Order: sequence, then structure tokens, then C-alpha cells
Amino acid sequence: MRLSPRRDMSLIDLLFGRALPTWMERAERVAAATGIAIFGLDALSSAAYGPEAALTIMIPLGAASSSYIVPISASIIILLGIVYFSYLQTIAAYPGGGGSYTVSSENLGRYPGLLAAAALMIDYILTVAVGISAGVGALVSAVPSLLPHTLLLCLGILALITLVNLRGIREAGIVFMIPTYVFIFSLLGVLGFGVIKALASGGHPMPVEAPPPPAVHAAAMVSAWLILQAFASGCTAMTGVEAVSNGVRAFGEPTVRTAQRTLTVIIGILVLMLAGIAYLSHAYRITATPPGEKGYQSVLSLIVAAVAGRGVFYYITIGAVLVVLALSANTAFADFPRLCRAVSQDGFLPNGFSIRGRRLVYTQGVYVLAFVAGLLLVVFRGVTDRLIPLYAVGAFLAFTLSQAGMVNHWRKHKEPGAARSMLINGLGAIATGATVIVVLVAKFVEGAWITALLIPALLVMMLAVRRHFDRIEAELQCSHPLDLTGLHAPLVVVPVQTWGKSTEKALRFALTVSKDIEAVHVALENEKSSVEQLWKSFVEAPLTAQGLPVPRLVTLKSPFRHVISPIVDYVLQVAGRNDGRRIAVIVPELVEHHWYHYLLHDNRAELLKALLLLRGDQRIVIITVPWYLRA
Amino acid sequence: MRLSPRRDMSLIDLLFGRALPTWMERAERVAAATGIAIFGLDALSSAAYGPEAALTIMIPLGAASSSYIVPISASIIILLGIVYFSYLQTIAAYPGGGGSYTVSSENLGRYPGLLAAAALMIDYILTVAVGISAGVGALVSAVPSLLPHTLLLCLGILALITLVNLRGIREAGIVFMIPTYVFIFSLLGVLGFGVIKALASGGHPMPVEAPPPPAVHAAAMVSAWLILQAFASGCTAMTGVEAVSNGVRAFGEPTVRTAQRTLTVIIGILVLMLAGIAYLSHAYRITATPPGEKGYQSVLSLIVAAVAGRGVFYYITIGAVLVVLALSANTAFADFPRLCRAVSQDGFLPNGFSIRGRRLVYTQGVYVLAFVAGLLLVVFRGVTDRLIPLYAVGAFLAFTLSQAGMVNHWRKHKEPGAARSMLINGLGAIATGATVIVVLVAKFVEGAWITALLIPALLVMMLAVRRHFDRIEAELQCSHPLDLTGLHAPLVVVPVQTWGKSTEKALRFALTVSKDIEAVHVALENEKSSVEQLWKSFVEAPLTAQGLPVPRLVTLKSPFRHVISPIVDYVLQVAGRNDGRRIAVIVPELVEHHWYHYLLHDNRAELLKALLLLRGDQRIVIITVPWYLRA
Repeated sequence: MRLSPRRDMSLIDLLFGRALPTWMERAERVAAATGIAIFGLDALSSAAYGPEAALTIMIPLGAASSSYIVPISASIIILLGIVYFSYLQTIAAYPGGGGSYTVSSENLGRYPGLLAAAALMIDYILTVAVGISAGVGALVSAVPSLLPHTLLLCLGILALITLVNLRGIREAGIVFMIPTYVFIFSLLGVLGFGVIKALASGGHPMPVEAPPPPAVHAAAMVSAWLILQAFASGCTAMTGVEAVSNGVRAFGEPTVRTAQRTLTVIIGILVLMLAGIAYLSHAYRITATPPGEKGYQSVLSLIVAAVAGRGVFYYITIGAVLVVLALSANTAFADFPRLCRAVSQDGFLPNGFSIRGRRLVYTQGVYVLAFVAGLLLVVFRGVTDRLIPLYAVGAFLAFTLSQAGMVNHWRKHKEPGAARSMLINGLGAIATGATVIVVLVAKFVEGAWITALLIPALLVMMLAVRRHFDRIEAELQCSHPLDLTGLHAPLVVVPVQTWGKSTEKALRFALTVSKDIEAVHVALENEKSSVEQLWKSFVEAPLTAQGLPVPRLVTLKSPFRHVISPIVDYVLQVAGRNDGRRIAVIVPELVEHHWYHYLLHDNRAELLKALLLLRGDQRIVIITVPWYLRA
Repeated sequence: MRLSPRRDMSLIDLLFGRALPTWMERAERVAAATGIAIFGLDALSSAAYGPEAALTIMIPLGAASSSYIVPISASIIILLGIVYFSYLQTIAAYPGGGGSYTVSSENLGRYPGLLAAAALMIDYILTVAVGISAGVGALVSAVPSLLPHTLLLCLGILALITLVNLRGIREAGIVFMIPTYVFIFSLLGVLGFGVIKALASGGHPMPVEAPPPPAVHAAAMVSAWLILQAFASGCTAMTGVEAVSNGVRAFGEPTVRTAQRTLTVIIGILVLMLAGIAYLSHAYRITATPPGEKGYQSVLSLIVAAVAGRGVFYYITIGAVLVVLALSANTAFADFPRLCRAVSQDGFLPNGFSIRGRRLVYTQGVYVLAFVAGLLLVVFRGVTDRLIPLYAVGAFLAFTLSQAGMVNHWRKHKEPGAARSMLINGLGAIATGATVIVVLVAKFVEGAWITALLIPALLVMMLAVRRHFDRIEAELQCSHPLDLTGLHAPLVVVPVQTWGKSTEKALRFALTVSKDIEAVHVALENEKSSVEQLWKSFVEAPLTAQGLPVPRLVTLKSPFRHVISPIVDYVLQVAGRNDGRRIAVIVPELVEHHWYHYLLHDNRAELLKALLLLRGDQRIVIITVPWYLRA
């Protein structure tokens, strides 16, 4: 079993693609058209669950809910506009990638930066979970018999996306382009067709397929609290718009222009979708159905069926919604590992997150994201509506910190137009900040408390990691040249249980590195062992004949039949007796050719090494002298 | 976390008892009274399932089955007598312990010996499974509502016995003495009382509590095949009688006399029990009930209820049956590890089996036995009747090989009375050998095929293990004195990623063991690293000033971003270039104080060591220079 990069091909290659060298990194850049698919999936697909989340909250209002969706969507679109202009400026100011973490850290300081990072991590994880669960929601709307298998479908899709992402970003872009464009054109087509029909009928079109009447006939009166809750849920429609600004570096030249153009297209399409859905819900009097229960249908499914009927077009559109929603998770898979890498390079996360895998992807981030999102799906049984309350807090907190950071950025960079830019970002910060509070209050009991706990917990964890690394760095720091005092040969201890070739090899190695050698032997039974009998003739005699120093043979008693711990105890004693002297313990180790052969041995060498490392100290060095058995 | 024998007390001590030194071994000896409990439990408790197994086979005969049990039991008692006299001789001839493995190996040769060992191992495992399942069978007879929890009860009892046995044999004897004697006296009491009542009533006593009428009214005609099957099942009543001869060494002085007396008492009691059960089944017309089904009652439960009614005495007797049956597994727990140890000392099983644990018990054997018996219980859902067909083959095969070995023994030792002894053992060999064939044929389809496959499989495995050890021994064998030619200092390779105290320490150690040192550095980004910049001033300058040899700094390129494999590749190259030279690779390693801190690192040191061992060769030595972080 050799692990060289040339030998482990075949299956792994097929699954993950061939390993890529570092110089190929520049080639992994995207153009605007691919960029819309990669960085826009999350934002655009939000249209499929945002309005529905708001309508679901208003189920108790009965038929009236379809009227309230229009003003709620209008406020969300206004908020979206503010955020759009804010991010256009962020992209321009941070062509190297202006994620909330970078912007907040640079302009607001370490703690707000880490707060933004924690918020974003939670946001990305939920993007994956909600995207997949909503996609499966679309699927079970079209094929109701699949409803009982919701969770299994969710986990299967998660596994698929994880695999695709482990292959790397460019191929991911190609995989996702086709369904994204099918989704955009078919959904915009349905919405446009519906709006024309509605306008032609004077605002009261006849649905091709009538939606089911609301299950509850106005069980509640409209209240400001309910509308606030609906708005808070609807804000999830805005998640994902920060993706472009995070990933500016991934765009082709001219980087900033391409990124801005991509963001403009994405936001434009999103606004059209949100407006269209709101108007048609109102015109066709469409209300939400109770999620996770029998008879559930997604709002998009109801709209498409009302506008175009349940024909081929319906299935194409819903198919695209399914694929795009499920794959929207890809935005998070592109960004989460990059974020973790940035945080890890600043020392706030384990090193592993900044190691690129064979395909230039930060593999560990992909694994963590897939694992935690999978956990959320399992806990919430794959039902979107249960995940929504956890969602918007992280996204809007990151928005707020990013905009606030930009305000400080313009304060420092007094370039032309800085005041105007500061105003725009300031407005963005206030609007999104207010939304954070609204969402947190409106959704606290339903699940926002989980996010509200997790974000500070992550923050504390990141600070602890950094503190640990700082301590290690301070301890290992060496600002002086190589110290050449006290370079004496080590005192060598060789455990000798039987006389054999591996023992001979260990002794021979000991003789090449030091003149002070002690052989230790653990006497297990109360009889003289063969080693003790042979020592004089086999070791002492030839060494004396050559005038070489003779190792002392020390026999240790072992009343408890341990072999390892008496040796470790002895080594510690020797270290204690020889103050300031380095002690090198030579451990002869058999190397087998098949792993299962290790089951036949007591693996004392491994145990001895582990125990020496555990109980040893700075002066004790462990030398492994392997003996390779013939195959 | 220190693993010294003085620190890990408390909970482990409480569970397993304090660690015992080797010299206490002699004290762990048993007298005849304790011996009956330890070595007799298996044999005596067989009375509780042997006759029942025969009666269960005869369920289709209806009420008539209770007549046929008398001649079947009579043949089993005769067989038992033959085996008894055979084993008396074995004990005398092998005061050091005359298990089938020892006797067969010494007198018949290696393969028959290993065959006996394999047969015995299977036998012991089944003793545990059957003992426990039959015990639980008694329990659910008395408390029918527990029937659905059969398997759980079985596994719980198995866990308990395992724990008791890990504490060591003498304490086990005390734990088991009380229930054994309660069992013997209460069961013999019931049987005696029943026989008197039956004789007094002219052979047709009135039951206090009438057994349920047989479920099937003579659904089958009696046939030789059915009687043969019943006999084969009934033979399980004889399992366990070899235990005393295996454990002779554990008896107090005079060893042989004590052991023989113990065996005599055990066999005497067993004969009384078998005869009593058979007679009373006939007198009270008791038949078996379908096992594992609702309404199941063990035959012993039916007899006790018929003789004494379901009063306090019933519950005491059944309670003792339960405890003794379940604990009969203890015989196997006393013998299986000893057998494995003997086989392992001959090199046919991994070393681990001959290492005595903290309580002088061969711990690994206990674990293996508990695991496999647990597996059997799970597979057969804890129902005795399903386990019985697997059982008798192993036991009787071991009997046969042991007796046949004794025949050869007497042929070699021509002492007075040898001819008579040979005759007795020959008779035993023929009788038990014939029984093996009967059991194998009668039970093949029901499960004996599993045993018939497992025994040769075990045999092959043991031979493979021995072959492996022989090969290693031949390879390591060194019959010449220490070779002192070619003792040159090694060429030392030191991986240097950054300049720090642990790197300095590694370099300093390198300087103490050799003058030929190469430092290797993996360049990850295409920029000059700080190590390369510092090397001249921090390493070369001070060494040159002192007139010491200067290590060469080698920079390795890594297009695939690997850090470990370029170093390993380089070390292999160096080894290739320096034919016959030893290469020592120094691996600096950080030692953390808490295991979870290792999650924060990429643990490259561990990986490097593992890969060097995997891909290295005889000339490559690994030196771990640890750096202990402050707590």
C-alpha cells in the first residue's frame, strides 16, 4: 500500500477528478454567464421560498393573506434595492474579495469581523439546509407520493452536491448553468404570461387549475405582529445576495466590472421574480398550504398550475425549481470553505481549513459544511418551514456588519464621491440592522434563539483557537541563531526482550550514535532469560575485543507482568539521574506487509512509543528502528 | 493523563478488583467443595437442558414421548459412566492439566491436538450461549410475562458473568458456590421426594399441579430416526464433564486425589439427576412444550410443579436452576482462556491470549468468548432449542480425541495396569466417537453443519497463525554475536518548515549524532520562505564560526501542495544515492496536553512518521524529537 500521488488513481480519480497542481489555480476563473449560475443560484432560488415563508405565516388569515403579500414583498424589494447599491460599492472597493468577514475585520476591528464570520458560517450552513429542503418541497408538490421520503431525498441530494463540489469550482459551474437558465427563463416566462393574463382580465384572471381553498377561513384577525412575522420570514428571499461580493476574485478580467454586472443581473431577475410572485398570488388569490402535511403544495407550484395548468410546462418549471433550489446550496459550498480558509489563515480556525485538497478546493470546509447541514436536515426532518426561523438572522447580521464596515471604509478613504458612498452604505447598514432586530424578535421563540446562541458560541470558539495558536507560536518562537552549547551525544536506552536480528539492528544503531548505551530487559518469569545468558558472549565479548564501550544490561522486575511501563519508568529514572542529558530510547519495530497481521502481535513497540511520548519530557527522544519483514 | 499502575485506580478497581502481582498466582487454588461449583456447574446444569432437548425432539409423539425418555436417559447414563472412568485415568496421568488439547497433542500429534482445541473452543462458546439461554428459559417458565425479553435478559446475564470473570477465578468460585449447592440440594430433594411419592402410589402418582396436555396428539409414529435424534439432543446432558480434567492444576494438594474426588461427586450427582428426571417424566407423563412460543415451560419447571406444586419451594428451585444454568457458563469462562493461552503459547494463536491481565486472568480469551457467545445469542434470539444442534459435536469430538490420545499414552507408558487402562480409554474413545457420528448425522441439517464448518476453519486459521510466527522467527533468528562491521554514523535528514524552537531542537539533536546532516524544506508558495532567508545567518554562520560541519538546506518543490510525500520521496532518494548507509529522519513533534488540541493541528508529524514506516526500508530510521508545550 503505497500512498504516492501516482498510485492511488482509478476510483478516487473518477469520483473527485485528477489531482490539480497549484499553477492551475488561475485557470479556475469564471465569466459573468457562469458567475450568475455559481454566485446567483442562492439569491435567485430564494424567490422560491421567501414569499412562501411569508404566506405560510399568514395561513391563519385565510384568503386575505394573498392581499397582504403585495405590500410585504414591496418592502422586501425596497430593502433589496438598498442592499444592492451597498454591495455594488463593496465590490468596487474590494476587488480582491469583499466578504463581510474581510470588510468588517479591516474596518471595524477583530471582534466585529469574527462576529460577521460566525454569522456568515451559520448563514451558509442554513443556505444548504433550506435550499435542499425547499427543493425537495417542490418535488413533493409535483409528486405527492414522495412526501413520506422527504428526509431521505434531502440527504441524497446533499451527498450529491458534496461530491460535485469536491471536484472543484469550474466543473461545478458547468453542471449548474443549464438548470439555472431553465429556471430563470421558465419562471420569468410563467410570471410574465400570468401578469399579461391578469392585466387582460382586468386584474381577476381565471386560473387554469384552481388552487385549493385555504384550509382555515380567517381564523385570526390581521395584526401588526403577524405582518411583522411574515415580513421577517419573507426576508429570507434576500439571502445569498452577498455571494458575488465575497467571490470577486473568482471572476475573469475586468474583475470588478464583471462582478458588478453579474450582481446587477442577479438582483434584477430577483426583483422581477418577487414582484411577479406577489402580484400573481394576489390576482389568483393564492395562499400557502400547511408545510410537511398531507396535501402540501409549494406556492410556486400553485402559481404555475394556476397560470399554465399542470401540463408539460408545469413539470419543466417545477423540475427546474427543484434542481435550482437543491443546487442553490452550491453557493454556500463555493463560499463556506473560502470563508473558513480566510478565518483559519488569520489563526481563528484549525490549520486544516486552509489546506487545498487535490482539486484546489478547501476540502475540510466542504466536509464540515456537508456534515452540519446534514445534521440540521435530520433534526428538522427536512421541512423548510421549521428551518426558516433560524435563517435570516445570520444573513442580515452579516449584511449589517459589512455595510457598517463600508461606512468606516469611506470615512478613511477620502476619495471623490466618498460622502455619497458613505451615505448609501450607511442607509444599508441602518436598514439591514433594523431587519436583524425585527427578525430576531419576531422569530426568537420559533428558532432564532438557536442562531442567537450559536453565533456567540462560534465567536468564543474562534477566539479560543487563536489564543491556543498564539500561545504555541510564542512558545516556539526562536529569534536567536542555532544554539551550539551542550551538544553531547545522547544517553541511549535500548529495550532488549529477546536476542534476534531486530535487537541486533537496534544495538548497532545505538553504537553509531553514542558511547553511553544501556540495554534494559524486563524479566517476566523468575528465571534467567536467554538474553541474560547470551549477553556476555554475544555482546560484551566482541565489543571488548574491539576496544569499544560495552553497554550495561539492566534487568527490570515486573511483578504486575507489564512489559511497557517498567521500561517507561526506567527511562524516566535514567532521565532523572542524568540531569540535563538527552535520553534517546531506541524502539525496534516489526513492519508487516498486511494490516491484519498486526492483529497477531501485541504491538508493544507502538504502545511503548505512545507511552514514552505521553509520559516523557523535553529531554527524551524516541528512535524507531524498523525491521521490515519479507513479503 | 498518565497511565502508571498507581494512578488508574478507583472505578476500574471497583469493577475488576485491584491488580494482582504474579507471585499471588499459587494462592488462586481451589479445594474440592469450591471445585464442584467451579468445574461442575457446566456438567450438573446440563441436566436442566439435556433431557428437555430429547423430549422436545419427541413432541410429535405426543404423550408417548414420556415413555421413550427412560431408555434414552439410560443409554446416556451408560455413556456417561464410560466417559467418567476414562477421565479418572486422564486426571491421574496428567496432574498438570489433561485437557483434550494437551492429551491429543502429546499422544496423537499436532493436527489431532489442534482439532481437539478447535472442537473445545466451539464447545466452550456454546456452553456459554446454551447455559445462559436455558437459564433464561427457566426464568420465563416461572414468569411468563418476561418471554418477549428473552434476548435482552440473555445479554445482560452474559455481561454480568464476563465482569465477574475478569475479576479472577477464586472470587468467582465463592460467588458461584451458594447457588450451586442450593440447586443440587433442592433439585435432588424434589426428585427424591417425587420418586418416593411415585413408588408409594404404585408408579402412578397424582401431580400437585397437572402439566398441560401435549399440544400435538401423536402427530408422528415413533421411528428409529426420531429416537436417534432425541438421543443426539439428549447427549448435551453430558457436556462439561471434561472440565475437571482440564483444570487439575487449579486444585489444592493432593492435586490428583482432590480432582478425582471432585469428578466422582459431580458425575454421581449428575447420574442421580438424569435418572430422577427420566423416571418422573415417565411417572407424571410430562412432555416438552414448544420452545420460544407462548405457553412455553421448561421440563424441570413442569416436574417441580407436579411434585411440589407452585409454592415457595418451586420458586427457590427454579431460582437456583436459573442462577446455576446462567452461571454454568462460568466453567467455560474458566477454561476457554486457559485453552487459548495454551494454544497461543504453542504459537497457534496471537500472543495476546497468553498475556495475563491485572487479575491474573487471560483477559483476551475472556473478551473473545464473551463476544462470540453474545453473537450466537443474538443470531439465535436466545432460544436454547435452536442452539442445541450446534452443541454436542464439539464436546464429543473433544472427548473422542482425548480418549484416543489416552489409548496411545498407555501404549507408550507400559506401567502396571496399563493394559486395563488402555481398554477403558479405548472403550471411551469408541463410544464417544460413535456418538460424534450419530450427533453429526442426526443434527446436520438443523445446525451441526455450522460446527462442522467452524472446526476445520479454526484449524486452518491456527495453522496459518503458526506459519506466520514461524516465518517471523526464522527471519529474526540471529545465532551469531553482535556484528560490529560498518558502524558508521547515520546520514541525518531534518525536515525544516519554519524556524522555531522545535526546529532548533531537532537540528541540535542531529548535530549530536552525525556530521552528515541535510535539512529539507518544502516550498509551498513560489516565494522564498523565511527559513531560506534565515538559514545563512541563523545556522550556517554559527556552525562555520565553531568549525562544525554545515548542514545543507534542500528546498523541495510541491506542485500538488503536499508537504509529507515530497519529504518521504526525498528521503527515499537520499537512501538510493547512499547505498548501504543508514538514513535517520528527525521528526519534530509537538506534544499537547489535551487530546482535543490535536484536532486543531494537521498532525503532519504523525503522518510523516506513518508514511516513512510504510514506504521506508531497512536502512531508514525515524527519530521523534518531541516538543512538550507548557500546560
